[in-house]
Amino acid sequence: VASEFDIIRRYFTRPAPRAEVGVGDDCALVKVASGVELAISADMLVCGQHFFADADPLKLGHKALAVNLSDMAAMGAVPRWAMLCLALPEPDEAWLEGFSRGFFALTQEYGLDLIGGDTTRGPLNICVQILGEVPEGQALRRDRAKPGDEVWVSGTLGDAGLALAHAHGRIELSPEDAAACFAQLDMPQPRVALGLALRSIATSAIDISDGLVADLGHILESSGVSADVEFSALPVSAAGARHLPGEIAQQAVLAGGDDYELCFTAPAALATEVATLARRLRMPLTRIGRIAAGSGLRIYDAGGNPLSIGVGGFDHFR
Amino acid sequence: VASEFDIIRRYFTRPAPRAEVGVGDDCALVKVASGVELAISADMLVCGQHFFADADPLKLGHKALAVNLSDMAAMGAVPRWAMLCLALPEPDEAWLEGFSRGFFALTQEYGLDLIGGDTTRGPLNICVQILGEVPEGQALRRDRAKPGDEVWVSGTLGDAGLALAHAHGRIELSPEDAAACFAQLDMPQPRVALGLALRSIATSAIDISDGLVADLGHILESSGVSADVEFSALPVSAAGARHLPGEIAQQAVLAGGDDYELCFTAPAALATEVATLARRLRMPLTRIGRIAAGSGLRIYDAGGNPLSIGVGGFDHFR
Repeated sequence: VASEFDIIRRYFTRPAPRAEVGVGDDCALVKVASGVELAISADMLVCGQHFFADADPLKLGHKALAVNLSDMAAMGAVPRWAMLCLALPEPDEAWLEGFSRGFFALTQEYGLDLIGGDTTRGPLNICVQILGEVPEGQALRRDRAKPGDEVWVSGTLGDAGLALAHAHGRIELSPEDAAACFAQLDMPQPRVALGLALRSIATSAIDISDGLVADLGHILESSGVSADVEFSALPVSAAGARHLPGEIAQQAVLAGGDDYELCFTAPAALATEVATLARRLRMPLTRIGRIAAGSGLRIYDAGGNPLSIGVGGFDHFR
Repeated sequence: VASEFDIIRRYFTRPAPRAEVGVGDDCALVKVASGVELAISADMLVCGQHFFADADPLKLGHKALAVNLSDMAAMGAVPRWAMLCLALPEPDEAWLEGFSRGFFALTQEYGLDLIGGDTTRGPLNICVQILGEVPEGQALRRDRAKPGDEVWVSGTLGDAGLALAHAHGRIELSPEDAAACFAQLDMPQPRVALGLALRSIATSAIDISDGLVADLGHILESSGVSADVEFSALPVSAAGARHLPGEIAQQAVLAGGDDYELCFTAPAALATEVATLARRLRMPLTRIGRIAAGSGLRIYDAGGNPLSIGVGGFDHFR
């Protein structure tokens, strides 16, 4: 049986050129550039809650890091270093091989180093902490949206939620739609380049991990403003469009969570810059509404009637 | 039922004066002082592996942070910021109240801020990431021990291991000894002040979390040296002394793990400085052996005969 130290050596020790000391001491040591703030985030993925027990380990390795990269994107930070803590029921070599491959494919793509962590026995649990750099004062926060700003989202909303609804037998997707939706659920592409470009454009940003209603709600609450959003303006995929206006699809779009797109606000005067950015990054950026004074999120249907939003975001204890 | 956001707000949101942005955005934001390196560590504690399901949550809150502070101590770093990821079977208010009290008592004692993390449903799992600062080039590493250096340990060894042996019915401790040993197991006192003072004295350091044999072994392997240690020189508590030379006590002293003392090497010429430091910090610092060329750890009994060490350190997959 592989030992804890064998596992770390074999699967999780790679060169860490951006660290003074990487895996293998009590602490990792890194130098932070001057003139920057350090952005730090951590996410815990639990078997049975965030993924199925038979999930492809390669996809899990990808996703465990991707959800953290998405937090970097939402702050406009450049990801630099990651720590990985892993509880495993048993040291399954095939699983470790797949997981580490998925994980390191992303560290390589985004140029960050795995510098440490912990490996232990226990019910499968993956906890990743990520550290990045952002020039002082330039971080995208959620508390700076202003009345008059426009609200934007990247990509399309609801595909991950549709995949989950399909997996739970609550909706039936065609094989093609299922493939497209599960790709979004299992292999989300963090919007890091978008986050960096938004530093000079957006007044606030958040990643949509708990669903649009909850996450835009966080911006509104933190900024002390309200928003008016038109449901028909929300960007959906072909799969999403085929299942709207069904209730399950509507809920997936508004509150499905796991989308890992960015929701951001920008001054109306910068709408052209946002459109240019969408072309440059080759991703849809869609204007979905406008910030106003007051509080709360109002969503309207195509006829201008308020939609009742009985859908909160994803909450692990509700 | 309390929501995920209620739990974070109620139990885990405290002022974070050392952060630009603390709990409540996609990432925390901190400024790292210039001229320092950032020391980063993470530990995952799993129910049934690292603690019993009925463990006192206050003690768990203490220990979850203490084991990370011990890593800071081992590098000579000043702890500054912590992230906490928590998987809970259910949002038990009494548990959360006790756990957060134990956790924040230590953050306050050591002057660090909780700046973020994650809360989710799942088998009880506590993952803490810690960040600290150490002046450039002054970190205590495990790869700098030199032949001729002396080997030291702080405190006493084996009490946590004796407590575990007692809990598993492999040994019977008197009520007084049990109280003393369980205090070491449940409420370890991280040696942060010692780590800071050792920056100018020690050539290498490590915290004894996996047992002396394994952890001193890490220093030897990383430094490319060997060591000779005399068993009778190892510092033990009154409880330990009462159960020596029994095999269980011997194993607890050599390989029990969970001691959270520091093992360090220092030039023989600095022995007086170490002794002075012990008096100033009011803690035992005991010279247990000497570094030599070559490789491996040799432990001798009082008669100068080599002890066979069939005891590796604690390994979660062995």
